[in-house]
Amino acid sequence: MASADSAGSSTITSTTSPAAESGVVGEGLRAALDGRWRATRDELRAGLDRADLLPDPSRTLEEARANILREMRELSSLNFAAAGFRTEHGGTGDVGASISAIEMIGYADLSLMVKSGVQWGLFGGAVENLGTKRHHDRYVADLINLDLLGCFAMTETGHGSNVQALETTATYDAATGEFVIHSPTPSARKDYIGGAAEHARVAAVFAQLITGGPGEEPTGRGVHCFIVPIRDDAGADLPGITTGDCGYKGGLRAVDNGRIMFDSVRIPAENLLNKYGDVAADGTYSSPIENTNRRFFTMLGTLIRGRVSVGATGGATARKALTLATRYALLRKQFDAPGEQEEVTIMDYRAHQRKLLPLIAKSYAIAFAQNDLTAELHDVGSLNLGSGEPNRKDAKRQRRLESWAAGLKAYSTWHASHAINVSREACGGAGYLDENQLSLMRGDIDVFTTFEGDNTVLTQLVGKELLTSYGDDVRGLSATGWVRFVAGMARDVVAEKTAARQVIQTILDDSDEDPEDSALSHRGTQLRLFRNREDHLVRTCAQRLRRANDDESDPFDVFNNAQDHLLKVGQAHVERIVLESFIGAIAECDSRSAAELLDKVCDLFVYSALEEDLSWFLMHRHVSTERAKAIRRGVNELCADLRPHAQTLVDAFGIPEALLTAPMLEHG
Amino acid sequence: MASADSAGSSTITSTTSPAAESGVVGEGLRAALDGRWRATRDELRAGLDRADLLPDPSRTLEEARANILREMRELSSLNFAAAGFRTEHGGTGDVGASISAIEMIGYADLSLMVKSGVQWGLFGGAVENLGTKRHHDRYVADLINLDLLGCFAMTETGHGSNVQALETTATYDAATGEFVIHSPTPSARKDYIGGAAEHARVAAVFAQLITGGPGEEPTGRGVHCFIVPIRDDAGADLPGITTGDCGYKGGLRAVDNGRIMFDSVRIPAENLLNKYGDVAADGTYSSPIENTNRRFFTMLGTLIRGRVSVGATGGATARKALTLATRYALLRKQFDAPGEQEEVTIMDYRAHQRKLLPLIAKSYAIAFAQNDLTAELHDVGSLNLGSGEPNRKDAKRQRRLESWAAGLKAYSTWHASHAINVSREACGGAGYLDENQLSLMRGDIDVFTTFEGDNTVLTQLVGKELLTSYGDDVRGLSATGWVRFVAGMARDVVAEKTAARQVIQTILDDSDEDPEDSALSHRGTQLRLFRNREDHLVRTCAQRLRRANDDESDPFDVFNNAQDHLLKVGQAHVERIVLESFIGAIAECDSRSAAELLDKVCDLFVYSALEEDLSWFLMHRHVSTERAKAIRRGVNELCADLRPHAQTLVDAFGIPEALLTAPMLEHG
Repeated sequence: MASADSAGSSTITSTTSPAAESGVVGEGLRAALDGRWRATRDELRAGLDRADLLPDPSRTLEEARANILREMRELSSLNFAAAGFRTEHGGTGDVGASISAIEMIGYADLSLMVKSGVQWGLFGGAVENLGTKRHHDRYVADLINLDLLGCFAMTETGHGSNVQALETTATYDAATGEFVIHSPTPSARKDYIGGAAEHARVAAVFAQLITGGPGEEPTGRGVHCFIVPIRDDAGADLPGITTGDCGYKGGLRAVDNGRIMFDSVRIPAENLLNKYGDVAADGTYSSPIENTNRRFFTMLGTLIRGRVSVGATGGATARKALTLATRYALLRKQFDAPGEQEEVTIMDYRAHQRKLLPLIAKSYAIAFAQNDLTAELHDVGSLNLGSGEPNRKDAKRQRRLESWAAGLKAYSTWHASHAINVSREACGGAGYLDENQLSLMRGDIDVFTTFEGDNTVLTQLVGKELLTSYGDDVRGLSATGWVRFVAGMARDVVAEKTAARQVIQTILDDSDEDPEDSALSHRGTQLRLFRNREDHLVRTCAQRLRRANDDESDPFDVFNNAQDHLLKVGQAHVERIVLESFIGAIAECDSRSAAELLDKVCDLFVYSALEEDLSWFLMHRHVSTERAKAIRRGVNELCADLRPHAQTLVDAFGIPEALLTAPMLEHG
Repeated sequence: MASADSAGSSTITSTTSPAAESGVVGEGLRAALDGRWRATRDELRAGLDRADLLPDPSRTLEEARANILREMRELSSLNFAAAGFRTEHGGTGDVGASISAIEMIGYADLSLMVKSGVQWGLFGGAVENLGTKRHHDRYVADLINLDLLGCFAMTETGHGSNVQALETTATYDAATGEFVIHSPTPSARKDYIGGAAEHARVAAVFAQLITGGPGEEPTGRGVHCFIVPIRDDAGADLPGITTGDCGYKGGLRAVDNGRIMFDSVRIPAENLLNKYGDVAADGTYSSPIENTNRRFFTMLGTLIRGRVSVGATGGATARKALTLATRYALLRKQFDAPGEQEEVTIMDYRAHQRKLLPLIAKSYAIAFAQNDLTAELHDVGSLNLGSGEPNRKDAKRQRRLESWAAGLKAYSTWHASHAINVSREACGGAGYLDENQLSLMRGDIDVFTTFEGDNTVLTQLVGKELLTSYGDDVRGLSATGWVRFVAGMARDVVAEKTAARQVIQTILDDSDEDPEDSALSHRGTQLRLFRNREDHLVRTCAQRLRRANDDESDPFDVFNNAQDHLLKVGQAHVERIVLESFIGAIAECDSRSAAELLDKVCDLFVYSALEEDLSWFLMHRHVSTERAKAIRRGVNELCADLRPHAQTLVDAFGIPEALLTAPMLEHG
C-alpha cells in the first residue's frame, strides 16, 4: 500500500515513489474514473495521443475552420460518430460511448469537441430523436460520415433561454404542400449557430409551426423542428436565406458560429421532423401528445445529450487544467527553503495546495457523477420511450434525468471555468502563454457556462423541479403561474431523493440522525449534512412561495424575492447527488489501495464544499462554530495528507500525454 | 432629489427619468469618482473617444503590434507621457496625472495601456528613479517622445516573485571599465518581457552586480539595474544578445512579450543606474544605503508606479465591463412578465441584480481607494526622498504606501477578473462575441492578477508588513527568518491603523464599541466590524507564529501552517482601507443627492463584503446568526433599492461613449 506509506503529515515532502504508486493505486484510480465506457476511453486515448491535434493560435480564422473539418473527417475513423444513432438507423447504438468519446475529444481541442458535438450530437440528435423513418433513411448515414454537414438552429438573437418564445415561423401552405420558414423580426434571427457561418449545408430549424386543417383557422402549434437547406454545394446562400458570421469570439476559434435569416423560404412538407407532431396534406395537425407544453418539453427532453456532453467536457477540461498546473507546481521552486540550497517547491506551500487540491477533489467527484449521468442517459435512452405518452414511471425517470443533466452541466462547467482560471494563475506568466495551453482552454471554456443552457437558468430549473416533485404540467408556466402552482400544492414538500443506492442507505443506517452527535469524518455525518441542507432549503423555499397565496402579494415579486433561495435549492441538490455518486464509486472500486486514497479525496471534496458554504451551515445551525473551525482545519490537514499523492491523482485522469505538451513543464 | 424619489421597493421598475437623474446626481457621482485629477481625465476622455482605438481581433500578431506603436505615437500628443518625469529631467512632474491617464487608456485597449506602461512607467521609471543626471540627460527626452524604445527586463524564466534570487550577472571588469552582462543558466533567461520580442532597442536589465575594489575579491552586491542595448536600428539582435518571442498569449495580443539571453555582453560602466549603488573605476562598490536588503527594497520601492497603474487599470476595466453588462441587462428581456405583453427586463430579476449590483458597489469602493492611493503616491513622490537613507517618518510612510499599493493591486485585479467574468456570463452568447468587447477584455485582464506582482504573494506581503508593523530589516528574510522575527517580537501586536481621517474618527466616536449593540446600517457599526476583523486576525496570526519559538516546531512548518491565516490578514486589512476611502469620498462629495446615493452604494459594498466573509464573522462570533440573516436580506433589499439607479451608476463612470461600442447594445 504505497499510498498509506507515503502519506506524511509534513508539508515538505518530495513526491514519494510516484512510479510505484502510479503502478498500483494509479491503475485503480484510473479504472474507477474510466467507469463503464473504459474501452471507448482507451480507444480514444490511443487515437488522440497526438500533439498535432492541439489548437494552434497562429492559424487564421479561415485556416482554423478548415483544419477542424479535416480533423473531424480524420477522427471519424475512430468510429464513435455512429455510436449516437440506433442500429436500425445506421448507427451502432451506444449513447454512453458517444458521450465518453466526445468528452475525450475535449482533451485535444474544445473547438473540435464543439464542432463534433454540433454535427453528431445536436444536428444528428435532432434528426435521430425528432425525426421518423423517412428522415433516418435519408440523413443519418450521410451525417455520420460528414457527407451532410448540418447545424442546429434553435437560439435567436432575441431568445436564448426562453425557447418557447422563438419567433421564427413555419407556416404550412396546403396549396403547395410546403412549409414557409420566415424570420418576422430582427430579433428572430438565428444567432450563435455553430456551423451556420460557413460549413453547414442544412439546418435543423426550430420554429413556431402554424397550420390549420380544412375550414380551420391556421393556428400556432408550438415549436417544431424542420430540416432547411441553407447553402448550395459551392457554399452560397440559397434563395431567401441570408447567413452571417459571428466572427471572432472569446475562444473556440475554429467553430464557425453564424446567423441565419429566412425570407419566406419554402421547404417540402416531409422536412418537418414529425415524430411528436405532424401535419397532414390538408393542413390538419396531429400529435401523440395532446398538451402543447408537455409536447414541447418532451421534444426538448430528447435533445439533452448535447447538454450532457457539454457538462462532461467541462469536467474533462478542468482535469486537464489541473494536471498541467499540478505538474508545474511540482517542478517550480520559489523562495528560500529552510536549510537547503534549493528553493521551495511551490506545491509545498499551503496556499498553493489550497488552490489546487480541493479542485482536484471536486474534479474526482464530478467525474464520478458524470459517469453515473452518462450511464443513466444511456439506459433511459434504451427504454425507447417512443413517440407517444410514456408511462408515468418512465416519464418521471426521464424528468429526473433532465433535471440531473441540467444541474450537473451547470455545476461542472462553473467548476471548469473556475478551475482553469485558478490553474492559469497558479502558473503565473507561463500560464498566460498559449504554448502552455491554459490560456487557450480558458478562452474556449468560457462559453460553456452559458451555452446549451445558461447555468443560472439551469440551476433554477433544478430547484423548480424539486419544489414541484417533478409534477406534470408545471413546465412552461410563467414565473407567476409557477409560483401559484407551488403555493397551491399540499404542504410540507420534501425533497424526494433519487432511489438511494444500497451503499448510501447502509451508510445512513449506520450513522447518527443528528450529525452534531457523530464525527465529521464519518461518511454518514457528511451525507446527512448535505441531505439536511437540501431538505431545509426545499422546505423553507416552499414556505416562502406559499405567500403567493396571500392576497396582498404580487406573485411575480414572491417568485423574484425567492429567486436566490431557489437557486440555492438547486445547488444543494446537485452537490448532494454528486457526493452520492462519489460514495458509490468508492464502493465499486476494485482496488483497495485506490479506494483508500479515494476516501481521502472524497473527504477533501466534502470538507471544502462545507467550507465554501459554511456561512449557510452556521446561520441555520446545521454546524456549530466549533465544528466550523474543525472544517477549516480539516481542509488544511487533508491538503497536507494528499500533497504526496498529487502526481498520482492527476496522472490517474489518464489524459493522453501528447495532449499535455507544454514547454513550461520542460524546465519548471 | 431624483434619487430618493425614484428608489422604490418594487423590483419591477423601469429606469426612472435617467436623463434628469444623470444630470444632477450623475454629475456629482462623476466628480467624486474623477477626484483630484479630473482635468487629466477630462482631457483623456475627449482624446480617447474614438472607436478606432478599440482592439481589432482580426489583426495578425504583426499587424496588432505595429498598430499599437502607431497609436502610442499618436496619443503621446496628449502630453501625459511626460507627466511621470520631474521637470528638471524634461518631464512635467505630475505623477498623479500619469497614473490617471494610463488608467483611462485602459478603457480603450489594455494592450495600449500595458505597452505605454512598459515604456513610460517601467522602463522610464527605472531610468527616472534608479538613474542619475547622466541617465536623465541622455534618455528621458528620447523615451518620452518614443525615439528610444525600451523594455523592463526584471523577470527571469526561473524567478518571478523572488526578485532577489535573479541569476543574471553583471560583473565589473576594471581593466576595460565595463560591465559584463551574462545569463549563466537557462533559468536566468529574461522572460515575458514586454517589448523584448520586437520593439525595444534597449533594456533596463536587473542583474546581480559583482565587483570588488583593488585587492578585494569580487563579490555580489545584490540586484542592480543596467541599461543594455539589445537591438540595432534595423531591429537585429546585437552581438551576444539572443532575443525570443513569447508568441500568442491569453490576451494583450499587441504587446510583444519576449525573452532575452545574454552571452557575456559588455556595456560601459556609465550604464549602471547608479542612484543607490555605484562602482568606481577601480571596482570599488559604494552605496548610500549600507544594508543590502534595505538597499534592494528601497530600489524596488521606487518602482511601484507600475503596480499602482496596474491596480488602477484593473478597476477601470471592471467598471467598463459592468457598464456594458448593465446596459445590456436594461435592454434585454427574457421570459414572461406578469400581465404584460413584453418579457421581463433581465435587470429586474433578483439573481441578475445580485450578479451585477454588488460588483458595481465594489467598483465604486475601489475607485475611491485607488484615487487615494494615487494621491499618496503623488505626494510621497514629491517628498523627493533622495538617494540616501530617508528619515524614519518618511521611510515608514513609503513602506505603508508600498504595502497599500501591493494590497490594492491584488484586491482590484482579482475584482476585475471576477467582474469581467460575471459580466460576460450575464450577457450570454452576445458576451462571447469579440464585437461586444467583454471576451477580449477577459483575455487581456487575465494576466493582471499575476504580473507586476503575483496577487497571492502581494496579499501575503501586506499581511507580513502588518504583523511586523512595517519594521525595518524584516524584508528579504526567508519564511523561516521572518517567522522567527515575529515570534521574537513583543507580545500583542495590534494592527496599526493608518492615520485616521477626521471623518472616520468622528464616525467611530459616534458609534457603540460593541457592534452587536448598534444598528448594522450605522456606518460606525460597519467600520467596527471591518476593523475588529482585522485586529482579530492580526492578533491570532501573531499568536500562531509565536509557536516558532517552541523548540519542537519547525519554523517553516509554523509559517506554512499559518499561510492561509496570513493571507486573510492581508485581505481584511485591504478591505478596511478601501471602506475608509469610500467613507472619505462620501464626506468630500459636494453634491448632496450624489452623496445620498453613494451612501446606499457604500451600504451595498459593506453588506456584500460581509456576506462574502460571513462564515468568518459567524465562526469568530463577530456577528450573530440573526445578524447574519439580516446581512443577506440587506444585500437583497439594497439591490432592489439601487436597481432604479443602475443606469445612473454606470453612466457616472464616465467612460468615453465610443469605447462602449457594442452591437449587442443596439438591439438588446
